[in-house]
Amino acid sequence: MGSGQNSRLTFELLQQDGAARLGRVTTRHGVIDTPVFMPVGTLASVKSLTTEQLSRLGPQIILSNTYHLMLRPGVELLEKMGGLHKFMGWDRAILTDSGGFQLFSLASIRKIREEGVEFRSHIDGSQHFLSPEKSVEIQTRMGVDIAMAFDECPAYGISHAEVEKSMHMTHRWAARSLTARTGASALFGIVQGGIHHDLRKRSVEEIAALDFDGIAIGGVSVGEPKHEMMDVVQFTAPLLPVDRPRYLMGVGTPEDLVNCVAAGIDMFDCVMPTRNARNGTLFTSSGKIQIKNAKYVADDRPLDPECSCTTCTTVSRAYLRHLYLNDEIAALVYNTIHNISFYLDLMRQIRQSIASNSFAAYRETFLAKVAIGDPQKEEIR
Amino acid sequence: MGSGQNSRLTFELLQQDGAARLGRVTTRHGVIDTPVFMPVGTLASVKSLTTEQLSRLGPQIILSNTYHLMLRPGVELLEKMGGLHKFMGWDRAILTDSGGFQLFSLASIRKIREEGVEFRSHIDGSQHFLSPEKSVEIQTRMGVDIAMAFDECPAYGISHAEVEKSMHMTHRWAARSLTARTGASALFGIVQGGIHHDLRKRSVEEIAALDFDGIAIGGVSVGEPKHEMMDVVQFTAPLLPVDRPRYLMGVGTPEDLVNCVAAGIDMFDCVMPTRNARNGTLFTSSGKIQIKNAKYVADDRPLDPECSCTTCTTVSRAYLRHLYLNDEIAALVYNTIHNISFYLDLMRQIRQSIASNSFAAYRETFLAKVAIGDPQKEEIR
Repeated sequence: MGSGQNSRLTFELLQQDGAARLGRVTTRHGVIDTPVFMPVGTLASVKSLTTEQLSRLGPQIILSNTYHLMLRPGVELLEKMGGLHKFMGWDRAILTDSGGFQLFSLASIRKIREEGVEFRSHIDGSQHFLSPEKSVEIQTRMGVDIAMAFDECPAYGISHAEVEKSMHMTHRWAARSLTARTGASALFGIVQGGIHHDLRKRSVEEIAALDFDGIAIGGVSVGEPKHEMMDVVQFTAPLLPVDRPRYLMGVGTPEDLVNCVAAGIDMFDCVMPTRNARNGTLFTSSGKIQIKNAKYVADDRPLDPECSCTTCTTVSRAYLRHLYLNDEIAALVYNTIHNISFYLDLMRQIRQSIASNSFAAYRETFLAKVAIGDPQKEEIR
Repeated sequence: MGSGQNSRLTFELLQQDGAARLGRVTTRHGVIDTPVFMPVGTLASVKSLTTEQLSRLGPQIILSNTYHLMLRPGVELLEKMGGLHKFMGWDRAILTDSGGFQLFSLASIRKIREEGVEFRSHIDGSQHFLSPEKSVEIQTRMGVDIAMAFDECPAYGISHAEVEKSMHMTHRWAARSLTARTGASALFGIVQGGIHHDLRKRSVEEIAALDFDGIAIGGVSVGEPKHEMMDVVQFTAPLLPVDRPRYLMGVGTPEDLVNCVAAGIDMFDCVMPTRNARNGTLFTSSGKIQIKNAKYVADDRPLDPECSCTTCTTVSRAYLRHLYLNDEIAALVYNTIHNISFYLDLMRQIRQSIASNSFAAYRETFLAKVAIGDPQKEEIR
């Protein structure tokens, strides 16, 4: 089942190295080499960067958020302005989530019905309604390349029975989302099922049986311990169809990306590089750096000597610390440029190692060399 | 008197059109075409921009602040990091003010003596001392191309006698600043004298008699009405030596620049384009725009159709409004890119019109076409 080739999106699996996959997704806005990391541009802006700056960093696809965009600036305006791409001046691919995740994490829910979800905006308390049809319609009207099915994202820690009930709702909403697919946006389905193998298996069977253009694993990064997230991914990814892109939503640290590529994931998104940049937490090839740390006060070395981004080739750690401590806006720009570059470089290296059948060695070296991830802090989005 | 040519700085007067002057200043960090506007980089950062972004906008010189830099990050660190240029990754010219202005407007003064000024930092209350020798030493150690003499900047509205007394102090400090000039930084003297013609005349005589590499008009933009500022400039500029660059400190609006070039000024600095950018006030060829204004909500035109900056060529007013209203950091970046571009473009047009002996016509057209300046708001720095 499932369409590997259609006018909305094509996926080519170019090579496998163990379970790791090298692929190519083709959208109306260009080719995406997978495994890929999608920087997050919540409000039609990858925070701290102009679209031109972002372009120069080279991502082939970014993610934006239906929930946020429907509230600000609203789909009517986006449509009037010629769509999300034109609005933000971005000519490569865009994927939007369906609003499901933010709805259950940010908004105040008034009522969840079979039909959809009534909620109040977290900004001004205004009342709104989202359903599978409404979400797909909004995403389509924004003109995105890849839309996501509308799902219910269960909280971590609820019972098996509750997760199962929620999962069945997600499945019914998936079918309705697919029926609502019109126009040129591709549509991905979302597998739920919490941390339960039987439910994840069932969810894969139901979602993969539908004619989605790609399949996502949802419901991770919702507060579960890291080992449970990895268990879900390692259990679920091998069950997914080989001929469609596999997207792990909201993950993660650099190690997470490496480990989840090893499990067979093709696509990732996370606010970690951009949010950490704003908090002064910077990823480098020798581990994470808190740039405000006093030890960098007179450190005239580049942030990451192995990185070729503008930040690392033009200024020093001492300068970045000075900017950050003095609340200079440029600190956020420099930090974001670097963290996104780091993530994009990491994915490039991952793809090269798969292409040369040396991903296992790359992964081992990477994990041994750095303990970049902070096990105390789960990723957030 | 005065040296038009030396190893620190040379000035060539290329052409005059009325009193307007086309010139070329050569520093250790390249050539500066005058009339020139210097963007302000208070803390070794032109606010909201990376140095690389700033470079691409093309300014040949920027201004930074001795007072701010001596407090953060401190001259010791700047010297250790190889100087201000290297610290911020900037390879074109830098002028620093002497600290005088900020001292009298920001710091809490403990004591003004003949020797210098004892003051407390506006950041942490720590105690510091600045004198002509100390200020020139700091500027020289930072490695700037053009240093400013240490002056006393009298408040607006004090008596003729008080301004005169202060002016004589500035003159004695000017001579001491000059004696302290060592190394490769050029040094400009500063003319004071408030709004009083007799004092301005006397101050020009004393300052121009000294071997400064350029002469500045200080003590304007301190709260006086616009017409008084213009009166000071129109009275003072013609008295200045023709063979050295003339710098009007802390001015101004686009009209101010045009009008003061007409009076014979060569160099300007002002926080207006950068600060206004952060407040959502944008300069365009058809007047000022408050980007948050509801009338731009669905305005898909470029901010300024006559501008070729990244902001104007990649996104719309509607997008800029969306970013600004939603506190996106990129709003500050886009706005700053445009406002600095606008100022630099204005100076380019001014230079072209002087070169073609059509400055008077340019000025007339410019002033008639737009009322960009806001007469209610005096510039601030």
